[in-house]
Amino acid sequence: MHRHTCFTLIFTFTMLLMMNACNSPSGQQTTGTPTNGQAVPEYAIVIHGGAGTITKANMTPEKEKAYTEALNKALDTGEEVLKNGGTALEAVEKTLMYLEDNPLFNAGKGAVLTNSETCELDASIMDGSDQNAGAVAGVKHVKNPIRAAIAVMKNSPHVMMAGTGADQFALEQGLDTVSNEYFFTERRLESIRKARAREEKTGMTGRRHDEKFGTVGCVALDKNGNLAAGTSTGGMTNKRWGRVGDSPIIGAGTYADNATCGISCTGHGEYFIRYTVAADVAHRMAYLGESVEEAANFVVNEKLDEKGGSGGLIAMDAKGNVAMPFNTEGMYRGYARPGERVVKIYKD
Amino acid sequence: MHRHTCFTLIFTFTMLLMMNACNSPSGQQTTGTPTNGQAVPEYAIVIHGGAGTITKANMTPEKEKAYTEALNKALDTGEEVLKNGGTALEAVEKTLMYLEDNPLFNAGKGAVLTNSETCELDASIMDGSDQNAGAVAGVKHVKNPIRAAIAVMKNSPHVMMAGTGADQFALEQGLDTVSNEYFFTERRLESIRKARAREEKTGMTGRRHDEKFGTVGCVALDKNGNLAAGTSTGGMTNKRWGRVGDSPIIGAGTYADNATCGISCTGHGEYFIRYTVAADVAHRMAYLGESVEEAANFVVNEKLDEKGGSGGLIAMDAKGNVAMPFNTEGMYRGYARPGERVVKIYKD
Repeated sequence: MHRHTCFTLIFTFTMLLMMNACNSPSGQQTTGTPTNGQAVPEYAIVIHGGAGTITKANMTPEKEKAYTEALNKALDTGEEVLKNGGTALEAVEKTLMYLEDNPLFNAGKGAVLTNSETCELDASIMDGSDQNAGAVAGVKHVKNPIRAAIAVMKNSPHVMMAGTGADQFALEQGLDTVSNEYFFTERRLESIRKARAREEKTGMTGRRHDEKFGTVGCVALDKNGNLAAGTSTGGMTNKRWGRVGDSPIIGAGTYADNATCGISCTGHGEYFIRYTVAADVAHRMAYLGESVEEAANFVVNEKLDEKGGSGGLIAMDAKGNVAMPFNTEGMYRGYARPGERVVKIYKD
Repeated sequence: MHRHTCFTLIFTFTMLLMMNACNSPSGQQTTGTPTNGQAVPEYAIVIHGGAGTITKANMTPEKEKAYTEALNKALDTGEEVLKNGGTALEAVEKTLMYLEDNPLFNAGKGAVLTNSETCELDASIMDGSDQNAGAVAGVKHVKNPIRAAIAVMKNSPHVMMAGTGADQFALEQGLDTVSNEYFFTERRLESIRKARAREEKTGMTGRRHDEKFGTVGCVALDKNGNLAAGTSTGGMTNKRWGRVGDSPIIGAGTYADNATCGISCTGHGEYFIRYTVAADVAHRMAYLGESVEEAANFVVNEKLDEKGGSGGLIAMDAKGNVAMPFNTEGMYRGYARPGERVVKIYKD
């Protein structure tokens, strides 16, 4: 009798453990779990402005203040849309337009320059409610690349457009277009000239170890419970040969599905493409039952880190749980929910 | 005593059932399971030449013979490499070069034309041994786009290049370049002119229901147990605005990881991007423990089909198990293992 009771207990326990490993959506351990008493917040928004060697040591108080203010203004912009019943898509659009227009970030105005001293911009958007998506790569004249990505999603049968064709589409859509010089800033012109001088001197074409991965991204959850995610970037300083990073690649730099989460990545794009980072986070949630934080942390801090892939991501599930892991020194990031606001730059 | 024995048995049984659902790599049900007595074949190769409304009714015996011969020659090409100890990458390269050079298929010579009567070609490659990858989108002058994708993977720090920059890179790499007219065939010129005339008449810019999704793809397994996968295409007839489909997108049209499988897709590319089809098959194997056939069939015949995404894919795991599901009327396809050869066009 005793032996069988014991067996039964062991089997029951083992089974429960397995059920947990196999299926548990254990969202309770998530960093950004809503703490204001609501099970699911009315709305939520999370943003990033790039990851890299961002340390207190290489930051002035003025610069830190400028970035903190910009991140807060970006969150204000998105919150305003969501509070007033706007959709997650609209919140992502407006928030990313603000970040694209702000020359502090590597997207839109202030984007890094290519080897031939032009700006070539990438952006993508995904709607978590129907998994519709849009992306542009290598555009040179759309003032706000995120709007071009949204136009591709909404007003074309396509998901992705590249190069002059994508600019042509944006023009046909009546989006604001600008000369390529509009995107230039003194700071980025200096960077590209230094990078090219270094390259001529050393013969090395690789990236500098201390380079920042400039990208901006946003994930929003609206009052209808829908998620949307978007990413925008100028790519890599000194890029050439029409290099495309992960930002305009659905499943690599951006992904959204109400059933799992919305994601926007920033980092060494080649790794994010090879390891389909955004899709991997969502699939781990769907198939392993991991929470958004478990999945995001594992992919960034275990899988990518082990392979040498530097960067980070923001992710949010349809309950407003937020994850913002990164394996670099810092990441410009923040999130907002009703009555709650977090903005951070460095590691805690 | 009896009651406890009974409980124990029930729990054991339930537990075994759950373990199976959670982890079983039940490769035994796979269509293309090696049947020649070997556990893992010495080598294996699987190819596709596009999916769509390919029926006996709209095929002449001459056309059928030409396609069957071409598929067999493509398999011969890849088998020759693998038999002689070549790598999976080399086999994919040579096989896809043959299919690109053959004007029957929508890749390389014989590619479909864009709205502006040019050929804009996409290709990608992934190495399952280290998950390194390369891709080009919208190239107009590389004779064999798959070779450009391989050069991106091997000889650049990047994964993806697009447009004129990608052509420039191919030129710098010493790859054969051609005038854009090299890719033209009478048949495709006729198609684009008909498509444009139809468009002018009806004002409709959408695809015809009976269109074929022309793409070529190959997955190979070499004697070292390494997988590689590649895809090449001319894209969609009458495409414009620099449209990019799934073929050059790692995780959408192409994916390879020795731990799961190699995959190449063909179909309505926009759906394959939105549902990260190639990555999804691999992740279902990794996280749900599905066999390559279970995962591939589910994604193509359940998930994609339900969403209206037409097409198919080829997939192979590192044991040489093959899956070739499609939800269209037909798919040019075939595979070869030592002493075994299958070539098919229609549904069984």
